[in-house]
Amino acid sequence: MSGEIAEQPAAWSRLLAPGNEAAEAIAEAAAEIRRRRPRFALLVARGTSDHAALYAKYLMEIRLGLSVGLASPSTMTAYGTRPDLAGVLMIGISQSGASPDLVDSLAVGRAGGALTAAVTNSPGSALDQAAEYRIPVLAGPERSVAATKSYTAELLALYLLVAAVRGDSAAPARRLPELAAEVLSAEPGVAEAATRYRYADRMVVTGRGYSYPTAREAALKLMETCALSAHAFSAADLLHGPFRMIDSLVPVFTVAPAGTAGEAMRPVHAELARTGADVLTVGSPEFASAATVGLALPAGAPEELSPLLEILPFQQLALHLALLRRLDPDRPPGLRKVTRTH
Amino acid sequence: MSGEIAEQPAAWSRLLAPGNEAAEAIAEAAAEIRRRRPRFALLVARGTSDHAALYAKYLMEIRLGLSVGLASPSTMTAYGTRPDLAGVLMIGISQSGASPDLVDSLAVGRAGGALTAAVTNSPGSALDQAAEYRIPVLAGPERSVAATKSYTAELLALYLLVAAVRGDSAAPARRLPELAAEVLSAEPGVAEAATRYRYADRMVVTGRGYSYPTAREAALKLMETCALSAHAFSAADLLHGPFRMIDSLVPVFTVAPAGTAGEAMRPVHAELARTGADVLTVGSPEFASAATVGLALPAGAPEELSPLLEILPFQQLALHLALLRRLDPDRPPGLRKVTRTH
Repeated sequence: MSGEIAEQPAAWSRLLAPGNEAAEAIAEAAAEIRRRRPRFALLVARGTSDHAALYAKYLMEIRLGLSVGLASPSTMTAYGTRPDLAGVLMIGISQSGASPDLVDSLAVGRAGGALTAAVTNSPGSALDQAAEYRIPVLAGPERSVAATKSYTAELLALYLLVAAVRGDSAAPARRLPELAAEVLSAEPGVAEAATRYRYADRMVVTGRGYSYPTAREAALKLMETCALSAHAFSAADLLHGPFRMIDSLVPVFTVAPAGTAGEAMRPVHAELARTGADVLTVGSPEFASAATVGLALPAGAPEELSPLLEILPFQQLALHLALLRRLDPDRPPGLRKVTRTH
Repeated sequence: MSGEIAEQPAAWSRLLAPGNEAAEAIAEAAAEIRRRRPRFALLVARGTSDHAALYAKYLMEIRLGLSVGLASPSTMTAYGTRPDLAGVLMIGISQSGASPDLVDSLAVGRAGGALTAAVTNSPGSALDQAAEYRIPVLAGPERSVAATKSYTAELLALYLLVAAVRGDSAAPARRLPELAAEVLSAEPGVAEAATRYRYADRMVVTGRGYSYPTAREAALKLMETCALSAHAFSAADLLHGPFRMIDSLVPVFTVAPAGTAGEAMRPVHAELARTGADVLTVGSPEFASAATVGLALPAGAPEELSPLLEILPFQQLALHLALLRRLDPDRPPGLRKVTRTH
């Protein structure tokens, strides 16, 4: 897991290099999406990739003005629904491309008239074969059960796809590998922060807008590697009930980048301060410095690319917390890398 | 909360009575939906009502073959997106009808050409005023912060709306009040079961398909009333990582009704049995009898109506667990009945 976290700047550079097979696949899929002008989009994914799908939902709604739904695979698999999906864009997202329910959902979508694309880290996988367009994320083999580099490579591939549909250049993404290296170099501070949560067994993670997927993915990483309970809530939902579960034994991790997502966190930060909660913030220097533990992100990425950087300190935190607890983050007992759900 | 739980059969009977204002509103909205043949649907809600929206997503996808997305209000409020929603059905669901971000989202949707409807327990609310069609759920004033009767009344109103769009009779729903009374009469068994979890501070709730919203709502109820950590996962997602957090100190609550949703639980039940987890099951007699603690539901409701019955034992469990812990389930500290998020 440590090696795969560190590989991320190199993996992104690979994906950003002009003229590679991903660039070509993205250009072809984007041209077809522009040509067909989908009436809405359905995204199909599970686990970590579902958080990449949630990121793509915000990105496509905000940057393309396209309404997006996250598909419930069981309606097409367990319940056998065969919807008319003519004019719909359907994208399956999966590291392994092997989960039967995702493959079946994409096949049902394609049979129902949808324009289908697969975003995977496994060229030639069953999901690739089910789709008309295949976008490889080029993260290279991922061996740790807790996905790290495949997640951020999925985010980047989806960003590049949306940029291509808009006809935008990929220039804003080019600085990401350098910014990621800077974030990753702060690992000693993250390792130090991890000691604070050595004995915590419940935590809450929260963010909003583009950073809500980060909160979801950070919580999943902590659960997978540390066998603890990490709850993710959108900052708005948190105030509708779950705020109740935050007490002196529950640290709160917030994601507050510069921009709209961070601004939207102000009421939550105010409420947390009022109740004296123990808060760790990953985000802009301003928000980080106001927290009990602050992990500041460098400036230089537009808000819609911030999720690629935000997740890095959380991946390191999950790793170091697992090691402090004498758990093996690469092979958590009872979990498999590829989960075959139907 | 106890009184409002008990009122549910009467509230449903009110909503089912022919010729009331809800029946008329549902018939009018359904006729307009049939006439306009929406290309997809967007549902907007938060908190407990978001679980009613999730139920409606399954119902509309399976019973109407209509693709449904759960809207992310922040894309329209915080990020200011103005999507073209011509031909889209947009339904806002809220007990109070007062949360500004929901009202704003519905107003943006209406301005963008969507056919809009509000499903609320507050006639004349801001959400009602923002929508073209208003469906009251007739649950009567709800005073406990933890919503109970307004949740099931929302489920029933959405079921009746979908039945009307299909042109089906509401007959399958008519037995619900009687079946609910039977479920509620088993309260002493639920109170007894609650003692088992008196000192648990982390739990996992899981279900699939139509019963996944029940798992989400049960977890929220337990968190709101008992200040504990209750994680809800779709049974398929649970196997993708979060299974890791289930150990001997984490009881698992499963929802397994007769039908597809219950059948889909078999692999999860098998994995839970293999790992020796402590399992409470609300569902069919077969599934309930296989659990450590089983709360059996009566036969007589089709699977798509089962969620109305499934949540009842969980509402009672949340109530009794709060009382055992000497907490006030009606007024949890730090929570408000109406949450105004922007």
